[in-house]
Amino acid sequence: MSKVVCFGEIMLRLAPAGYLRFEQAQSFDAVYGGGEANVAVSLANFGVDALFVTKVPDNPVGQAAINEMRRYGVDTAYMVRGGERIGIYFLEKGASQRPSKVVYDRKYSSVSQAQSRDFDWKKICAGADWFHFTGITPALGDHVAEAVLDACKAAKKAGLTVSCDLNFRKNLWTSEKAGEVMTRFMPYVDVCIANEEDAEKVFGIKAGSTDITGGKLSHDGYKDVARQLSDRFGFKAVAITLRSSISASDNNWAAMLYKGGEYYFSRNYAVHIVDRVGGGDSFGGGLIYALRAGLSNQEALEFAVAASCLKHSIEGDHNHVTVNEVKTLMAGDGSGRVQR
Amino acid sequence: MSKVVCFGEIMLRLAPAGYLRFEQAQSFDAVYGGGEANVAVSLANFGVDALFVTKVPDNPVGQAAINEMRRYGVDTAYMVRGGERIGIYFLEKGASQRPSKVVYDRKYSSVSQAQSRDFDWKKICAGADWFHFTGITPALGDHVAEAVLDACKAAKKAGLTVSCDLNFRKNLWTSEKAGEVMTRFMPYVDVCIANEEDAEKVFGIKAGSTDITGGKLSHDGYKDVARQLSDRFGFKAVAITLRSSISASDNNWAAMLYKGGEYYFSRNYAVHIVDRVGGGDSFGGGLIYALRAGLSNQEALEFAVAASCLKHSIEGDHNHVTVNEVKTLMAGDGSGRVQR
Amino acid sequence: MSKVVCFGEIMLRLAPAGYLRFEQAQSFDAVYGGGEANVAVSLANFGVDALFVTKVPDNPVGQAAINEMRRYGVDTAYMVRGGERIGIYFLEKGASQRPSKVVYDRKYSSVSQAQSRDFDWKKICAGADWFHFTGITPALGDHVAEAVLDACKAAKKAGLTVSCDLNFRKNLWTSEKAGEVMTRFMPYVDVCIANEEDAEKVFGIKAGSTDITGGKLSHDGYKDVARQLSDRFGFKAVAITLRSSISASDNNWAAMLYKGGEYYFSRNYAVHIVDRVGGGDSFGGGLIYALRAGLSNQEALEFAVAASCLKHSIEGDHNHVTVNEVKTLMAGDGSGRVQR
Amino acid sequence: MSKVVCFGEIMLRLAPAGYLRFEQAQSFDAVYGGGEANVAVSLANFGVDALFVTKVPDNPVGQAAINEMRRYGVDTAYMVRGGERIGIYFLEKGASQRPSKVVYDRKYSSVSQAQSRDFDWKKICAGADWFHFTGITPALGDHVAEAVLDACKAAKKAGLTVSCDLNFRKNLWTSEKAGEVMTRFMPYVDVCIANEEDAEKVFGIKAGSTDITGGKLSHDGYKDVARQLSDRFGFKAVAITLRSSISASDNNWAAMLYKGGEYYFSRNYAVHIVDRVGGGDSFGGGLIYALRAGLSNQEALEFAVAASCLKHSIEGDHNHVTVNEVKTLMAGDGSGRVQR
Amino acid sequence: MSKVVCFGEIMLRLAPAGYLRFEQAQSFDAVYGGGEANVAVSLANFGVDALFVTKVPDNPVGQAAINEMRRYGVDTAYMVRGGERIGIYFLEKGASQRPSKVVYDRKYSSVSQAQSRDFDWKKICAGADWFHFTGITPALGDHVAEAVLDACKAAKKAGLTVSCDLNFRKNLWTSEKAGEVMTRFMPYVDVCIANEEDAEKVFGIKAGSTDITGGKLSHDGYKDVARQLSDRFGFKAVAITLRSSISASDNNWAAMLYKGGEYYFSRNYAVHIVDRVGGGDSFGGGLIYALRAGLSNQEALEFAVAASCLKHSIEGDHNHVTVNEVKTLMAGDGSGRVQR
Amino acid sequence: MSKVVCFGEIMLRLAPAGYLRFEQAQSFDAVYGGGEANVAVSLANFGVDALFVTKVPDNPVGQAAINEMRRYGVDTAYMVRGGERIGIYFLEKGASQRPSKVVYDRKYSSVSQAQSRDFDWKKICAGADWFHFTGITPALGDHVAEAVLDACKAAKKAGLTVSCDLNFRKNLWTSEKAGEVMTRFMPYVDVCIANEEDAEKVFGIKAGSTDITGGKLSHDGYKDVARQLSDRFGFKAVAITLRSSISASDNNWAAMLYKGGEYYFSRNYAVHIVDRVGGGDSFGGGLIYALRAGLSNQEALEFAVAASCLKHSIEGDHNHVTVNEVKTLMAGDGSGRVQR
Repeated sequence: MSKVVCFGEIMLRLAPAGYLRFEQAQSFDAVYGGGEANVAVSLANFGVDALFVTKVPDNPVGQAAINEMRRYGVDTAYMVRGGERIGIYFLEKGASQRPSKVVYDRKYSSVSQAQSRDFDWKKICAGADWFHFTGITPALGDHVAEAVLDACKAAKKAGLTVSCDLNFRKNLWTSEKAGEVMTRFMPYVDVCIANEEDAEKVFGIKAGSTDITGGKLSHDGYKDVARQLSDRFGFKAVAITLRSSISASDNNWAAMLYKGGEYYFSRNYAVHIVDRVGGGDSFGGGLIYALRAGLSNQEALEFAVAASCLKHSIEGDHNHVTVNEVKTLMAGDGSGRVQR
Repeated sequence: MSKVVCFGEIMLRLAPAGYLRFEQAQSFDAVYGGGEANVAVSLANFGVDALFVTKVPDNPVGQAAINEMRRYGVDTAYMVRGGERIGIYFLEKGASQRPSKVVYDRKYSSVSQAQSRDFDWKKICAGADWFHFTGITPALGDHVAEAVLDACKAAKKAGLTVSCDLNFRKNLWTSEKAGEVMTRFMPYVDVCIANEEDAEKVFGIKAGSTDITGGKLSHDGYKDVARQLSDRFGFKAVAITLRSSISASDNNWAAMLYKGGEYYFSRNYAVHIVDRVGGGDSFGGGLIYALRAGLSNQEALEFAVAASCLKHSIEGDHNHVTVNEVKTLMAGDGSGRVQR
Repeated sequence: MSKVVCFGEIMLRLAPAGYLRFEQAQSFDAVYGGGEANVAVSLANFGVDALFVTKVPDNPVGQAAINEMRRYGVDTAYMVRGGERIGIYFLEKGASQRPSKVVYDRKYSSVSQAQSRDFDWKKICAGADWFHFTGITPALGDHVAEAVLDACKAAKKAGLTVSCDLNFRKNLWTSEKAGEVMTRFMPYVDVCIANEEDAEKVFGIKAGSTDITGGKLSHDGYKDVARQLSDRFGFKAVAITLRSSISASDNNWAAMLYKGGEYYFSRNYAVHIVDRVGGGDSFGGGLIYALRAGLSNQEALEFAVAASCLKHSIEGDHNHVTVNEVKTLMAGDGSGRVQR
Repeated sequence: MSKVVCFGEIMLRLAPAGYLRFEQAQSFDAVYGGGEANVAVSLANFGVDALFVTKVPDNPVGQAAINEMRRYGVDTAYMVRGGERIGIYFLEKGASQRPSKVVYDRKYSSVSQAQSRDFDWKKICAGADWFHFTGITPALGDHVAEAVLDACKAAKKAGLTVSCDLNFRKNLWTSEKAGEVMTRFMPYVDVCIANEEDAEKVFGIKAGSTDITGGKLSHDGYKDVARQLSDRFGFKAVAITLRSSISASDNNWAAMLYKGGEYYFSRNYAVHIVDRVGGGDSFGGGLIYALRAGLSNQEALEFAVAASCLKHSIEGDHNHVTVNEVKTLMAGDGSGRVQR
Repeated sequence: MSKVVCFGEIMLRLAPAGYLRFEQAQSFDAVYGGGEANVAVSLANFGVDALFVTKVPDNPVGQAAINEMRRYGVDTAYMVRGGERIGIYFLEKGASQRPSKVVYDRKYSSVSQAQSRDFDWKKICAGADWFHFTGITPALGDHVAEAVLDACKAAKKAGLTVSCDLNFRKNLWTSEKAGEVMTRFMPYVDVCIANEEDAEKVFGIKAGSTDITGGKLSHDGYKDVARQLSDRFGFKAVAITLRSSISASDNNWAAMLYKGGEYYFSRNYAVHIVDRVGGGDSFGGGLIYALRAGLSNQEALEFAVAASCLKHSIEGDHNHVTVNEVKTLMAGDGSGRVQR
Repeated sequence: MSKVVCFGEIMLRLAPAGYLRFEQAQSFDAVYGGGEANVAVSLANFGVDALFVTKVPDNPVGQAAINEMRRYGVDTAYMVRGGERIGIYFLEKGASQRPSKVVYDRKYSSVSQAQSRDFDWKKICAGADWFHFTGITPALGDHVAEAVLDACKAAKKAGLTVSCDLNFRKNLWTSEKAGEVMTRFMPYVDVCIANEEDAEKVFGIKAGSTDITGGKLSHDGYKDVARQLSDRFGFKAVAITLRSSISASDNNWAAMLYKGGEYYFSRNYAVHIVDRVGGGDSFGGGLIYALRAGLSNQEALEFAVAASCLKHSIEGDHNHVTVNEVKTLMAGDGSGRVQR
């Protein structure tokens, strides 16, 4: 069976227990995550051979991050050891009207200072059919952005499908810088994933009439964004996640897919949130699985949305669900009845 | 005061902390529970003298199970020590669209291999006025099914009221086997308790128009099932719990009672779930309490539903509520205002 | 900058983990709180110089209470050490229809037996512009009630604004005693805070048509109560919190303010509850902040309600939110979107 | 089989996790214990019918204390509910040169204010053959001291053997008061238990040449004390525990028994301490068991010392060991090899 | 690099937190372990390609066991899914004179009922140079004993070195049965590992003058046992671990090796115990590493003893140490100074 | 009363629970510490007005560090907010032969990039009589080294006594760089504190005959080192801590003082270790306290050693002991008997 290659950062996430605020915490729960790492674990949990490429420091905490990926069956053979530190982010879980809060301490991380020559992209892409990255990785630094570009080129050369989740992070770079750098990667991208803000923040592509904080989403607006993205960069598919936040405890979750000139909208899920972080990544993981597995466009979208719906009920960044669990939900059983 | 005898299995329940999935857990919270044990604890918490009869292995884990029953005031004088192991079940708590998951490891448990001669039913029934069992116990094995039959006979002979919660478990036996075995016990049963599926799965008795996963319940359908059950086996009372699952986090909960040719429907509770396991058992415990206490039919039903409504807000299998707490809710105060 | 003086009790709060009932607990989470202490921490978190005056025993548990206040920047220079014990309350967190439960063990606490001469009110009030107390403190004992009276007199003499949260506690005193004692303080009070029951329980002032347990609130009724309070005692402002309990997990939360002959009503928040204790105190803290900061009447009310809305999402008695967080919510963003 | 009656206080013990100091704790582990309660649990764990008599408040925390006794099989049928509060003690576990620290908050506890008429001593003593109390209980208050006296009289009248652990607590009463009150009970006592300081502190009986803090113990000194005690009060047996503290982590532990005019010394155990609290009580429990079971004087002493040696390796106040475990250690196997 | 194949059971280990006894526990820490699994993890931590072969049930708990092995880099590609349950053992950690206690619940486990045809030994052995098993695996059942025999044959045929840790478990089989079955495997074994009791319990081979519980070890006695084992079965090497238990908290730990007609004795370590379980397995893992790495006989023995010395300071069954850490200790630095 | 100023870094310390290794941890206990911060907390716990000066990032984790200092009464008024991140160190607690392990992630921390102009040294030193720093702070970066120099100058100018703990950290700088930089500060230093290695590593000053890893300490060697240090730099006092590591669980702990031409040696403590980190800092805190309090040279040394002996029994970096507790130990009571 062929493989999916994901390249990016894996961070140590430190979160106070339960709903404690940072000021109150006397211990942190420790998990590991990051945009592309989360996709890799999603895929491994679906039974896909997923290869995660990154750089971590050569110390026990870096090793623990690698171990965590291995635990869930991700192939870490091409992880590179070196650099100064593992990126860290502190997460305070929100509830009701109090939003979750993320404090990043990811600067100077090993991967952010990685160089393209750290990775043998030709060897990495051998035997793979898909390459995935997000807009976070090139935002980490100029050298790692070069590495992403080289990876894209090698992937294309080796015949891989390339997917990119735009994932704009305003505390890593400006819209201007993001637009400039990301534009260089787009010629290699086949499948573009975005949330309701990314297209505007990265490429200045605006939807007519959406009001996000108000939680109202216009189908027409999203169609418009998807088509503009596709027209400008020639993507084979554009997927947009549609989150409407009622509160930190309750969200509505859906998505659309633009492919082959057609627009597909998923059903909507009212989710009661356990852990919202990694929700978008789990959509990406679901979509890659579904497209590779040959599901129809509507089914692929529904799979990705159902998979990421379930993620919201799972602690940590990763989506620990199986294909069967997703299909059960797709089939309409979201009743949560006990399974004995 | 007279006693209630409950006979069945007590299992060790192992559950990852909070909403962690099995794959993520590094520790398990340990509680003890089982259909009839849960009823016994409910009753003890209501101030009833409850006697729990079972067989547990003669080792510290078996002892801990006994201790837990004693802790809440259940009489364990007739528990038998021996056999190979305590039954275990692993519980992963669901949330939102992700269902709770139960992995049973109860095969070869001491009680499943118990023989009728392990128990002196005559002595056990002395001084009691009620005997309760569920469809789970006879499903554990042929020998223990014989023990249940002997218990029923002894109970009837000694003038006890007998209640049975059908509680069909598809991973313990088939519908065919269940129907055949359970039919042998029914002549001794006065009060039959069932959920929306049991009557069909055990006795092939179907309601016309209920759609369970969709969460729609037809009153007429349930009336029909109750009457059919009553007509076939001559029960004095039939109670059916009506759960409608919106998600693993939110359920609607109500019940009906068919007694003396009349149908009673309880009020409905919208419950936000802390721990759903043991919900049905807490209904049984409430109903036995209420019928013994001489409440009117409508009141008895409301008591049982209010008791089990509260159970959904309590961790573990057992229902740790008092009669006063149930009556406060019955009286209409479900507002959850702090009690100082 | 000038200071706010709060005088009252700080208690050790002991709560079983998560939603465990008392009977199930094998450990207690330990935090510290109390009506006026909670207000002091709220204010310190808003950047106000808050001074908390109390009496705690001269032992390590008393010291830990002081440390906790210091941790959040409250000035504890005038805390007195002595007496026999720290007040304790046990909190069992409710959920859904099961109410939270408080067991008080506060009798004989150091502060309840404090004497007015323990405190040098003149010195304490120096450099302050506001004095806050609640109806709980005088309810603790006759001596401490004298201390409150002396504090009020000293505060008035030194030109401080005085606020009082009526906070009737039926297990500390009767309505008769409360009315008699509280009436003596009212001439010194400028700002009176009450919930929907306090005015009636303390002063016998009834609103026409409110039905609290049913969760229905009549605006006209509250206007009437506020005006009566104001007319009788000559308050400059009366604030009433409007809680409507759907369940222990979900509440509606709003408030009204009567000031300068005008009635102001806040927007309503549907809160999903993490920890409801201290909700009223966080309203008081917010109101004092906002009035001192010179916000308009409507804005001050909205600030207080938004601050206390957020409190419901925070573990423990204290409200750990900043001015910015409150203003973000006031500005309409209660969507709970992750803040990176 | 006949019963042992224990009368005294059961307290809630609150201890920071591990070796945290009070100032650092954010949660407390909660167990229940008290001199006589610990003896009762020891005996129940040895298979003896132990009856614990006390008074606890009628609230959920009092109920949890009762439940904890029931959990281990202690008969709590004569516990009285009422009074104001459960006694509490805070325990900070020491290590190495840092001593453990106890902060008592037991004043005004239900049992300290209990009256003799709360208890029907005649009924309680029926069917019992042994009554046990400690010097802590009468120290709690004058009324409860009367109750102890009445209990002693009833016990003697009903033919019970009476044992008393002197257990002097300097923060409960003075040596003068202790001597005066305890002297009134001594005529009823058959078996007197003391540690190296009690005889002097309570009755002014000094051993010639012991230096306790230095950890040196003189056999002759202890013989002298035992004989003086026996001579003055006519005890049938006097047992003295011999603890020599190397540090909070390591102790030497032994005991002597004076009975029938003979002196017996046990072997000495070098114990590495898990939890030292309740060590003396577990000696008392072991001694009562052994004397009732008809062991020889030397064996009875060795049983009591081995039982209490094991207690030092067990968390909490109670000694959770079986007769077999004690006998294995008595037989010389203290090697701690894994038992599979 | 070539691989080491380990075949055996992996169990879920459930242990009360800290030093709690079973009766006191309200949660269990969950790790996974087993004789051969522990060796495999040891080797993986030393950088060796270790392959663990077993059978686990096809449920989430079985999956979690597999994940745990993967986490530490063990190759689980040949694990088989099926059968009824995962073996469980409950561990109560001892301290001081109180021994650790193991309650097994491993009967009917998937691997105990595995058949030889479940495993393709030829394929498994391809590319490997070492096969390891223990006396526990054949003790689980007759079918799995056949599987072990087939594995031995296949290993020999493929030119692998075979090592066996005798590891007699009296609760799995009798000495007679063990002797009979184990004798069939011995012709295939090159390296035999035993503790001080195994040789006698399995093969009736006695050392002259050792007294184990007394903690006295005679070098001559061990030499004698090793030579007898070697003479009877023609082993290339015999290693015997020498544990002397002072208490459950403190042990002495050393070993001897008999190879090429020479006897080697290691230095002795005084270990203060964190977790003693898996101590012997970590010796096996160290020895296999050292022999494969070409260390001299004395060095290989010292490596194995130092590795297992460190294991006693690590929680869980597995030995999480690196080659460098072992070599540092071998070089004489056991001072435990902080490494920054 | 006058103040002590401490300047340095405060780090977030993240440690796996208990004795888990990094690879096994799923959560981290979070405390805050650093060489000078630990001294400041020690002093505050002794009742000294301690002022801690540092720079922390303007985010909630930085705030939590400040809060933690405030909690224990340290004056943080001159802490500066800014820069990129808080320094972090990961601590794995060792046991027996397994050493504790520290992984630093402190590079780029706010304080390491602080500039001298961030601090108004004149204002900070006003009203103080002592300034303390360690060799760690200047090792963090050239700018912060300048700040230390400016602080020393300002302190001297304002008449403060200056103490410096050499505290060489090989992963922060080389011996060459350390020697060069530290030499610049020495003219301002009155009291120099060092452990057995610092003098050699920083200034190349060697003792004749000490063998540290072997745990043997020569009094003459230490005298020699102290005299050399004093002669070269003109210190008023030199204190050297004498740790001899038996294992990670057991250490011997003592110290010497060279002052006024005389050598003083403390008594030696055999410590059973709870948490060894911060042991040296607690010696510094004790010494500063004792010298300021006017104790005799021998008493001052004994106070410092007893204080730091106690630290080894306390979790976290800080030494939470009172003057009374230290004096009790100095007076010879290290028996660890329970204090009631």
